Parts: sequence; C-alpha cells; structure tokens
Amino acid sequence: MSTFDPRLLSNEETRKQRQKVLPILSAALEAVNPYAAVKRQMSLEATKLFIGERTYDLDKYRHIYVIGGGKAGGSMAKATEDILGDRLTAGVINTKYGYLADTKIVRINEAGHPLPDVAGMAGAKQMVDLASEASEGDLVICLISGGGSALMTLPVEGITLEDMEALTSALLRCGATINEINTIRKHISQIKGGNLSRVAYPAEVVSLILSDVVGNPLDVIASGPTVPDSSSYAQAWEIVERYDLVDELPRSVVEQLRKGTEGIRPETPKKGDPLFAKTHNLIIGSNEIAAQAALAEAQDAGFRTMLLSTYVEGEAREVAHVFCAIAKEILHSSQPIQSPACVVAGGETTVTIRGEGKGGRNQELALAAAMQLGDLDDVMIIALATDGTDGPTDAAGAIADGSTLRRARQKKLLARDYLANNDSYNFFDQLDDLLITGPTNTNVNDLTFVFVF
Amino acid sequence: MSTFDPRLLSNEETRKQRQKVLPILSAALEAVNPYAAVKRQMSLEATKLFIGERTYDLDKYRHIYVIGGGKAGGSMAKATEDILGDRLTAGVINTKYGYLADTKIVRINEAGHPLPDVAGMAGAKQMVDLASEASEGDLVICLISGGGSALMTLPVEGITLEDMEALTSALLRCGATINEINTIRKHISQIKGGNLSRVAYPAEVVSLILSDVVGNPLDVIASGPTVPDSSSYAQAWEIVERYDLVDELPRSVVEQLRKGTEGIRPETPKKGDPLFAKTHNLIIGSNEIAAQAALAEAQDAGFRTMLLSTYVEGEAREVAHVFCAIAKEILHSSQPIQSPACVVAGGETTVTIRGEGKGGRNQELALAAAMQLGDLDDVMIIALATDGTDGPTDAAGAIADGSTLRRARQKKLLARDYLANNDSYNFFDQLDDLLITGPTNTNVNDLTFVFVF
Repeated sequence: MSTFDPRLLSNEETRKQRQKVLPILSAALEAVNPYAAVKRQMSLEATKLFIGERTYDLDKYRHIYVIGGGKAGGSMAKATEDILGDRLTAGVINTKYGYLADTKIVRINEAGHPLPDVAGMAGAKQMVDLASEASEGDLVICLISGGGSALMTLPVEGITLEDMEALTSALLRCGATINEINTIRKHISQIKGGNLSRVAYPAEVVSLILSDVVGNPLDVIASGPTVPDSSSYAQAWEIVERYDLVDELPRSVVEQLRKGTEGIRPETPKKGDPLFAKTHNLIIGSNEIAAQAALAEAQDAGFRTMLLSTYVEGEAREVAHVFCAIAKEILHSSQPIQSPACVVAGGETTVTIRGEGKGGRNQELALAAAMQLGDLDDVMIIALATDGTDGPTDAAGAIADGSTLRRARQKKLLARDYLANNDSYNFFDQLDDLLITGPTNTNVNDLTFVFVF
Repeated sequence: MSTFDPRLLSNEETRKQRQKVLPILSAALEAVNPYAAVKRQMSLEATKLFIGERTYDLDKYRHIYVIGGGKAGGSMAKATEDILGDRLTAGVINTKYGYLADTKIVRINEAGHPLPDVAGMAGAKQMVDLASEASEGDLVICLISGGGSALMTLPVEGITLEDMEALTSALLRCGATINEINTIRKHISQIKGGNLSRVAYPAEVVSLILSDVVGNPLDVIASGPTVPDSSSYAQAWEIVERYDLVDELPRSVVEQLRKGTEGIRPETPKKGDPLFAKTHNLIIGSNEIAAQAALAEAQDAGFRTMLLSTYVEGEAREVAHVFCAIAKEILHSSQPIQSPACVVAGGETTVTIRGEGKGGRNQELALAAAMQLGDLDDVMIIALATDGTDGPTDAAGAIADGSTLRRARQKKLLARDYLANNDSYNFFDQLDDLLITGPTNTNVNDLTFVFVF
C-alpha cells in the first residue's frame, strides 16, 4: 500500500473515514506503478514471453532490444530486465534526471525534462542506432511513459537543439495549439509520429505504454513513436503559413518541412503502412486502470461504486461544483448511486493562475470543493495527482469534507482568500489535509473521489 | 407536448436524433407547468379537498383564501380556481407584468420584477390584510413561485419603497452575500421569513411551492413566507456592523433592526413555533420533478437513464467539460451507463461576462460543449432553461453535437470567437440550433441532457 504522510491521520475527528478511504487511493496508485504494471503484462515461461495477450517464442528471436523514454522509463526497464535477464541483448532508455534505476543490461540515460537537452538527444541517438541494428527476427521492446516526447527528442539531421528551442518558442509565441505544435514536431523528428517503428523495421516492435494523456490517444502519448501518424507535411506547412512563420522559424526547420511537402523527405508512416503489421502497442497503465483499481478496492470495502469518466478537463475550481453536486444528490435522493458511495472521476483539470500562492490543480479543486460542501456531513472529496506532484508542490492533492471549513475557521484561515490567491497548498498544509506520497514515478493524470458515507 | 421552434428540425442530418429527444425535453417542461403541477397535487371530490397527501374536509372550513406571488402565480391561481370554483372566498396574487391569468375570484396584481414597485407593495398589503382576516376554521392557500421574493415585498410600517431600494443598493455595494441580504430583508418584512404564516394564524396555511432555487431550500424560495426562519435580529445587526452600514442604510431600516435586537419588535417565527403546526409546505414543481419526468420519458423511448444531480452550479463553459467527459466515457467504456444513454443534470450555472455578445448560461454551456465534443458522432448535449428564457434572450437554450462545429465551419463561424465574446445566441441562431419555446411561465432552473445514441 502506498504510504501517505501520517499527518493525514492526526485528527481524531477525521481519522476514521480517512483510514477507510486511503487504501482505495493506494490501490489506484499501485495499479499504475510502472514496475508492477510491466510485471502484470509481461512474463516469461521457459522460452515463451507473454506480453499482454501476445506470445513471443524466444527461440525465434535472435536479439531483444529495449528502448524508449519517459519518467517511468527506469522502473519499466528494471521490470523488463528482471523478467528477461540476459535474454536481453541491449537497451537504451532516456529518463528524467533523478529517475535512475538499477539496471545491468539496459543503459539508463538521465536527460532534460520538460526542456530537452544534449544528454537526451545523445540517448535518443543511441536508441535510433539500436533500432536500426535490429532486423528481421529481432524484437524491440519499447517502453513509453509520460515525458517521453521531450526525453526522446531527436530531430532529423541538420536541425540542432538550439533550432528546436527556437522552434518551440516561436510556436508558443504565435499561439499555435498543442496539436499544431505536435504536427510540426513529428515531421522533423527521427522518432515521433511512428518513425521509431520505421527505424526498427523489419524487426518486430512491442510498445508498453503508460498513458499520461487524457483519453489515451496513442498518437499523442510521447508523440506516438510507434503509432501511425495522421498528420502530413502539407498540414505542417499550412500551420507555418497560417501563423506566418516562414521567417520566424530556424531555416533548418523550414527546409525540412519544405522538402517534405515537395516529396523529397519521406512522410511519417501512416495507418495501413505494412510496417505497422510488425508493431504492437499495449497500454499497461492509464487513468482508467487506476480508476478501476480504486473502484474494485472501494467495492471490497463496502462502497457502491461508479466510474463517472476518465475524460474530465476544465478549470479545477469550477469542475469541483459538479463533484459537490453529485455528492449532494447522493445524500438527498440516493442518485445516481446509493451511499455508502464512491464515485471516481479521472482526467486533468487546469488552473488559471491569478494569485501568488502555492498549489496545484488537485489541491485547488479540493479547496473549491470544501467551500461548496460547507458543513455537509458524511461527504468527502479527494483530488489526487497520480504522479505525486500536484503543481509545483510536494503534495499529490488534498482532502475536503464537511469539517474542512470548520477546522479552518478555528485556525482563522479564510478559504475564500486562499482560493483567490491560488494558495491551496498552504491552506491544506495548516489543516494536515494534504496528500503527500512523494514522487510515484508514474503519471496517469489525476483522480477525483467523491465519497458519501 | 411543448413546442419548439421548427427550425430545430430543418436540417436533415440532425433531424432524426432531435425528433427523438425533443419529447424528452417537453416532458420535463410539462411536469413543471404551473397549471398542471397544481392540478396534479390538488383535487376536489365532493367536500374533500386533496392537496398532496393531506385531505381538507371543506365542511369544516368557513373561508378559503388564495394568496401568494411569483411569476407562475397567475397560472397557479387559475388552476386553484378551476378546482375550487366558488368555494373560494377571495384571493390576491402578485405576478410580474405580462403574466396575467384569466381568474374570476382571485385578483391578480401585476407588479415589478426583479425590482419591486408600488403596485407590488399594494398587492402584498392586500394579501396581508386577507391573511389577517383569516382566522380559526379558515384555510389559506399560498401559491409561491420564482420571483416571489421581489413580487411580495412589504416592509414593516415606516419603511418605504425608496428605503428598500436604498437598502438593496447599499448591501450590493458593500459586497454582502445573498444569505446576508436575505437575513436583513426577512427582519424588516411583514411577509418573508415565516411572517405570512404568523399573520394568517390561527387559520390553517398550505403552501404550494414551485421551486426556483437549486436544492429547494424552503426558507430561501421567495424568502420563505410560510417557513420557519433560522436567522435572527442579532445576526442581521451583526451584518450591519460587519460592513459598517449604520450610516449607510436608511434610518428606518436601522431603527427596525435595532428595535429587534432590543426585543421591542418580535423575532421572525422559528422552528418549533406552534404556529407552524398549522402550516404545511408542499413542493409541487422543482428541478428534480422536471428531471425525473424527462428520465421517465427517456426510458420509455429506450434510453438507459441516469440522474447525475440537481445541484449543478459553476461557470457554464467549465462545467460543460464534465458533461462532455461523461459522454466520452459512455462511448468508450459504457460507463457510468450503457448507450443509448440519457444522463440528466439539473441546477443553475453562471457566466462570467467578458464579451459583448448575446447569450445565456445554457447557450454558453452548449457552445463550450460543442467545442469540447469536436466531431464526435452519436453524442448530443442539450442545455435548457426551464423558464424558456436563457439570459436576456428569447431562447431557452441550445443543442450541441458532433455536427455543430462542422456545420459552423461551413458557415465560416468560429466557435472559439463566439465563446470569447459570450455570443452563443448568435452562433446557434445561425445554425438553427436554438431551443425556442417562448416563456413557459415556470422556472425550476436549468436542465442539461447528455445523450449518447
């Protein structure tokens, strides 16, 4: 069970309910622990390697390589190595500084995130070299997780890291959408947009993916290195023209895109491309998997359960209204489910920062919920960032219930003021209501729990 | 069935789904039609008058009076008269200008709303006079609906309409909450805060209430004329001091409140006061009743149904995210319910106006939903103001689905720009997607429908 800061249980009034619900949160986090998630999907029996529902007869594979990147890359590589041992030929993984793991065969490169750096590019080059070496009869295991897009930055030859930085800032300046930015990035990358599968071809590729994108769009997670790309050079060029960027972007980038539109550079591989017959993508961890694990645990604990959605977005403090509204309806009319009830919603909200306080989207959602719940008994709303790091804080989220405002008043804390200042961390910190787990090395976005006892 | 503007069915592409769902919306509106709602709860058989679950033996009542106020007052009085005929002794109802009804015994006064006027005060005085006349062995039927608080304005003697206006603007200026404003108003009124029940005592009172407040708090709807008050003169005075209003408020108001705190004026009647043994409050129309009627109709039409909540508040465009998230989850995993699905949520959202366009909270919710749905097929989100008037427009709301953005693009309408300008009305108007019913003479807040086909 994941451990939460024991301060959460320091208050006698709230302890009992919290002791009941914390194992449910732990179950969610355990289910998407990268090491455990790989082990759940991958196993070896004699010469048979099982990954998801597929079986790989290792007698038929000459080499097995491990490549990939993301914040969970170290743990995922460690699990893969623990399963395959010296059946692994070699491996290269890029992960964020501080996320090393103790592997023997797979080389773990620490690299820059969210801003790519030379270490990351060097590691990504090693991956591409390894994937190029792989050929017919080889298996490439690709380990993908949140942060993979930045951590596996490798532009085509001629485009430098400085060019990439200039590109990013120009795209952000002109107000391009994230989709537009990704379309351009995919078309100047050796890895993104299915390019990694192409490099590995004709080796077989299996991607184990920990999804940090709401709705799990495979072509978006880590920019889809092993997934057919649906965008084109023509669209990339259209974006350049739409925002009048021909003179703003580095010449190397403009050149690459122009050559692409002229057919001189190959398109990213598309759906239906025969090379994808040799690539299989498998989501091993996602918001949904975490939510379902929580619901299963809640059910065991006697709650009636409901998965509301795993697609929740929107401004945290406003979205909180809907969770409170559901809690009130359960209390009032036992709809949509009867108490004791546990409703779980996943996704990722946003915060429009107007104040100067410390907080994150989950803590802010919880603070708004506390205000909306008022003194309502028997209701609890919990917002949790599965990576353990909600905003720039050391908390994963916070707990709100009908006692929050009362306990705050006793300490002369005005919830309204803390919310106005985006200072949810300091509000909950003083009440011992922060969820603190430390970094979980995984990220499947956020979970909100509505409990009615 | 309530009739919607036929333009809604002018597009062949969207017609079929709309034909399926419009009767569901109509069912919701029918259920809270004030005339129908009174008739559903009140009936006469020989000398027995049935109201809700209570029976009144008319042989035992000397006089039956009808009083009350609100925008539905005319229709409610008409229904009461149609049932009781000349068994009614007399009646006075205040309603908004233009909301007259064709009654013979009950006098319908048109009055100012949302700003009270002398006509309203004169009518309220007639009500109080009638209620005072009523005594042991008389029955006072009180008809309460949205707008009743302004429409039944009658301050204690010595406080003028101008004083009331000055009071309201001072309270709004200082940033007092709506609860604080109501606490003060109840303590200077002859009607609000249970005072009407006291005036009518020892006559019996039965209040038929059409709720326009989220969650149906009886003491808030029309300021609770027949409901125990939980606030006190001491609290009212505290508010005056908190905002430093002693010199800001009209002297007559300050005097009244001061006398109250000194025990010279009687408190509003409280819970447990024996006079309430003779008062019965019955909600005959509410958001929940409308929602349940919609769900029943949807079920008959083959949808799986769920009442999400009747307590939804928050910023319309943000709250929309949650409804879209639910639609996406139903499509993706058949949770929380399987398609064909109809999820209904009630409440009242808000709009922070930043642009200069025309719209309302329901139309804005629908516009935001259209943007969030994108080109998703088989999903429809409908937002409906049950009073038929969403914001300052002649539309009750709008329909969003996966075709909205595409049809908008064909007409060169950029949803993003319309949303930024709070111009949802003009967006949907050009697409024939507005729900136009005309005024429904009822108000039980808003309903949002999530359909997945």
